[in-house]
Amino acid sequence: MSTPVPDPSPALLQRAASVRRSAMALGQCSDADRRAAVLAMADALEADQSAIVAANQADLEAAASDGLAEALVARLRLDGPKLAAAIAGVRQVAQLADPVGVRQLHTELDAGLVLERVSVPLGVLGVIFEARPDAVMQIASLAIRSGNGALLKGGREANLSCAAIMAALQAGLTRSRVEPTALELLTSREESLGLLRLDGLVDLIIPRGSNALVRFIQDNTRIPVLGHADGVCHLVVDAAADPAMALRLALDSKTQYPAACNAIETLLVHRAIAPAFMPKAIAAFAAAGVELRGDGAAMALGVSKAASDDDWSCEYSDLILAVRIVDDLEAALEHIRRHGSRHTDAICTGDPAAADRFLAAVDSAGVYLNCSTRFADGFRYGFGAEVGISTQTLPPRGPVGLEGLVTYRYRLRGDGHIASDYASGARRFSHRALPL
Amino acid sequence: MSTPVPDPSPALLQRAASVRRSAMALGQCSDADRRAAVLAMADALEADQSAIVAANQADLEAAASDGLAEALVARLRLDGPKLAAAIAGVRQVAQLADPVGVRQLHTELDAGLVLERVSVPLGVLGVIFEARPDAVMQIASLAIRSGNGALLKGGREANLSCAAIMAALQAGLTRSRVEPTALELLTSREESLGLLRLDGLVDLIIPRGSNALVRFIQDNTRIPVLGHADGVCHLVVDAAADPAMALRLALDSKTQYPAACNAIETLLVHRAIAPAFMPKAIAAFAAAGVELRGDGAAMALGVSKAASDDDWSCEYSDLILAVRIVDDLEAALEHIRRHGSRHTDAICTGDPAAADRFLAAVDSAGVYLNCSTRFADGFRYGFGAEVGISTQTLPPRGPVGLEGLVTYRYRLRGDGHIASDYASGARRFSHRALPL
Repeated sequence: MSTPVPDPSPALLQRAASVRRSAMALGQCSDADRRAAVLAMADALEADQSAIVAANQADLEAAASDGLAEALVARLRLDGPKLAAAIAGVRQVAQLADPVGVRQLHTELDAGLVLERVSVPLGVLGVIFEARPDAVMQIASLAIRSGNGALLKGGREANLSCAAIMAALQAGLTRSRVEPTALELLTSREESLGLLRLDGLVDLIIPRGSNALVRFIQDNTRIPVLGHADGVCHLVVDAAADPAMALRLALDSKTQYPAACNAIETLLVHRAIAPAFMPKAIAAFAAAGVELRGDGAAMALGVSKAASDDDWSCEYSDLILAVRIVDDLEAALEHIRRHGSRHTDAICTGDPAAADRFLAAVDSAGVYLNCSTRFADGFRYGFGAEVGISTQTLPPRGPVGLEGLVTYRYRLRGDGHIASDYASGARRFSHRALPL
Repeated sequence: MSTPVPDPSPALLQRAASVRRSAMALGQCSDADRRAAVLAMADALEADQSAIVAANQADLEAAASDGLAEALVARLRLDGPKLAAAIAGVRQVAQLADPVGVRQLHTELDAGLVLERVSVPLGVLGVIFEARPDAVMQIASLAIRSGNGALLKGGREANLSCAAIMAALQAGLTRSRVEPTALELLTSREESLGLLRLDGLVDLIIPRGSNALVRFIQDNTRIPVLGHADGVCHLVVDAAADPAMALRLALDSKTQYPAACNAIETLLVHRAIAPAFMPKAIAAFAAAGVELRGDGAAMALGVSKAASDDDWSCEYSDLILAVRIVDDLEAALEHIRRHGSRHTDAICTGDPAAADRFLAAVDSAGVYLNCSTRFADGFRYGFGAEVGISTQTLPPRGPVGLEGLVTYRYRLRGDGHIASDYASGARRFSHRALPL
C-alpha cells in the first residue's frame, strides 16, 4: 500500500451512520415506494435543470482555466441534451423490475419448519467516480430502486455539478417515502479515502473511472469492490474461420468504441489462415486508422511495426491492436491464459470442436463464438441497466445489473422447533422443496 | 497488518501454478469423471486406513510430549471409527448433485445471437485449518466434486496425519481421470503465509479454525475469504412469546453445542414478559450449568452476576449467556444492530406484527421465528454439505453448500454479429427469454 489511507474522520463516520440508518428504513420500503422515489428524483432534476447546467458551466470554466485535459472536459460537460438524456435514464431505472423480495429458495425442513431465501438490499453503496456528473444520477437512481443508501464521491473538477445534482435528488426524495439522507455527497479527498475504511457501514464500493483508480481502491480497502482494473480482450481467428466474418468481428471489436473495456487489444491468428487473412486485415485496419503491432510472423506477413513483450498485456484503449500468429488453438489458449484479464474473449471459427474447446477452456467472464466482444454490456445482455463489469472470479461476474446491488437472507419460521430433537433422532428432516 | 506476510517463494509459486494447470484440466472433466475420482479417493483412504491411523498416533504422541491443550488433542485424534466416518463422508460427497454446468440464464439477444450463463468451477481453493485432519478429506472431496483444485494447509501438529491422508487421496486420483496434482499439501508456516499472497492463482480461501485465525487471514489477503470471524447470535423473547417455548428455544440455542458459531450468546427479554419468564429461565439455566450475566434489570429479577459492556459483543463459545431486559422490540433490534455479528438471530413471539418486523429489520444472514438458532447449518438447510458459513453481506451468505465453490461464465454464440449494427439501429435486440 503506497498511499496511506487515513482513518475516517468522526464527521464522516457520523454521516455514514446516518446514511446507514436511512438505508435500513429504505430497505423496508415497498416496491411502489422505491419506484415513486426514483420518479420524484427525476421530477426534481427536471425542475432544477437550469441550476444544474449553470453549475456545470462554472465547473467547465474552472476546468478551462486549470487546463484540464480535453477528454476529461468532454466527460465533465453536462449540457441540456445530456442532462435530459440522464433524466430519461433515471425514469427508466424506475421501470426496472424490483430486485428485492425475490424468493430464491423455499424448503420445508420438517413439518412446520420452513426455510426461505429472499433477496434483500445490500445496505449502503460507496461510489467513487472521476469527472462524469451524469454518473451521480445513474448510480443514485439504481441505489434507491434497489433499496440501498449511497455515499457518492465525484471528481473534484465536478464538485459544483455534483452538488447541484445531489440537491435536486434529495429535494425529490423529500417528496417521497424515502429519507433524503439515504444519499450523501462526499466532496474532499480525505472523505473519499476515509470511505475506503468504512467497513461495517459500507457494503460495496463501486469505482467508475480509470484502471489506476480502480486498482488503487482494490488495493486499499477491505470492502468488496465491484469493478475491473483491466480489459485485455482477445479475438482468435481460428484455422476454420470464415475470413470475411473474422475481419468484420475484428474491426467491430477494435474500432466500434476503442476506449471501452470490452474492445479487443490482441488478435491471435492461426498460422494456417494467416497468409490468406492478414493482407486483407492489414489493409482494412489501415483504412480504419488502426495501428497494428505484430510478432515476427505477423511482420513477415506485412505488419510494419513490432510488438514488444509489454504489448501483449497492454490495454491500449486506443486504435492500436497487437497481432500474434499462433501455431494452433492450444497456443492461443495459452496466450490468453498468460496475458488476458479474464474479461471477454472471442473466437471466430466454423469448426464445432474448436468452438467447444474454446468456450470450455477460456476462463473469462465472457467467452464468445463468432460475435464481437463489444456485446459484453449489461444493456446488451438485456439487464436493463449496468452497475458495472466485474472481472473477479466469484459472482457477480461480467456485466452486472441490479442483481449486483442485492444480497439475500435466510428466513426460518418454526413453531418451537429445536435442534436437539434432530440430533437425538426424535425427529427427522424432510428437506422437501416447496414452490418458489 | 501486524504480522508481515512474505511474498510466496518461487517453489510455492511453481506448485500453485501446477495445481492451477491440473485444476483447469479437472474443470473440463465430466460429472461422471469427477464423481468417480471422489470414490477412488474414498477407496484409497480405505486401503490406507492403518497407515493413516498410525501417522495420527505419532502426531498424538508428539502432541502429548509438547503438552498440547486437551481440546486440540481431541480435534487432532483420528482413530478407526472417526476415520471410517470421514471416509463415509467422502462417499456422500460423491453422491451430491453436480454444481457445475447448470444453466442459470438463457436469452436470445437477437436471431442467431444466444446468451447463456453457466456455472463453472472457481479454479483453485486455498484451505487453511487448525488441527482436525478429517477436514482434509472433507474439503478435498468437495473440491474435486465441484471441479476445483486445492492447496491445503493443516496445523503443524497434524503434519504426519495430513501427509498420510494426502498420499492416499493422490493415490486414489492416479486411478481416476483427475490429475493427482490437483491437490497439494502445504506444510510450513511460510507456505501458509505465502498462500495468502497467491492472488491470480488461488480464487478462494477457506479458513477452518478459531476466530483469530479467520480474522488474521481476512486482514492479510486480497483473495476472497469464505468464513466468519464472529458468531454473536441473539434470541429475543418478545412480550407475546409463549414462555415455555421461549425457554425451550433458549436452552437449545445455548446448550445443544455451546462451542458452535450458531449458538446464542445473548438473550434479549421484553420487560413485559421478564417477570414471568426470568425466574423459570434462571432455574432452568442453572440446572443446565449455564452461567448468566445480566444487566441491572435482569439482576433485579434474580440473575446473580453482572454483565460488563464487553459481554454484549462477546462470543463465549461456552456455557455462559448474557441477559438483557429491553423496553420493547425496537430496543432489541437496536441492540442486535450494535452488538450482533449478522450471523443468525431469532425471535420467539406469537405476535405476527412483531414477527414480521423482526424478520424484515434484522440484517443477518439468518433471521428466525420460533425456532433454535442451531439450525443455521448447511446440512440442516438441506444442502448436503457445508463448505462454511459466511457472515459477509454479499453472496454467498449464511451456510454455504457446494454452490459456494462454483462461479459462472457467460457464453455468447453468434453468426458474425457485430455491435455497430445495433448502435446504428440497423438491428434491434429481441432479449427473448429461452427455456433453461
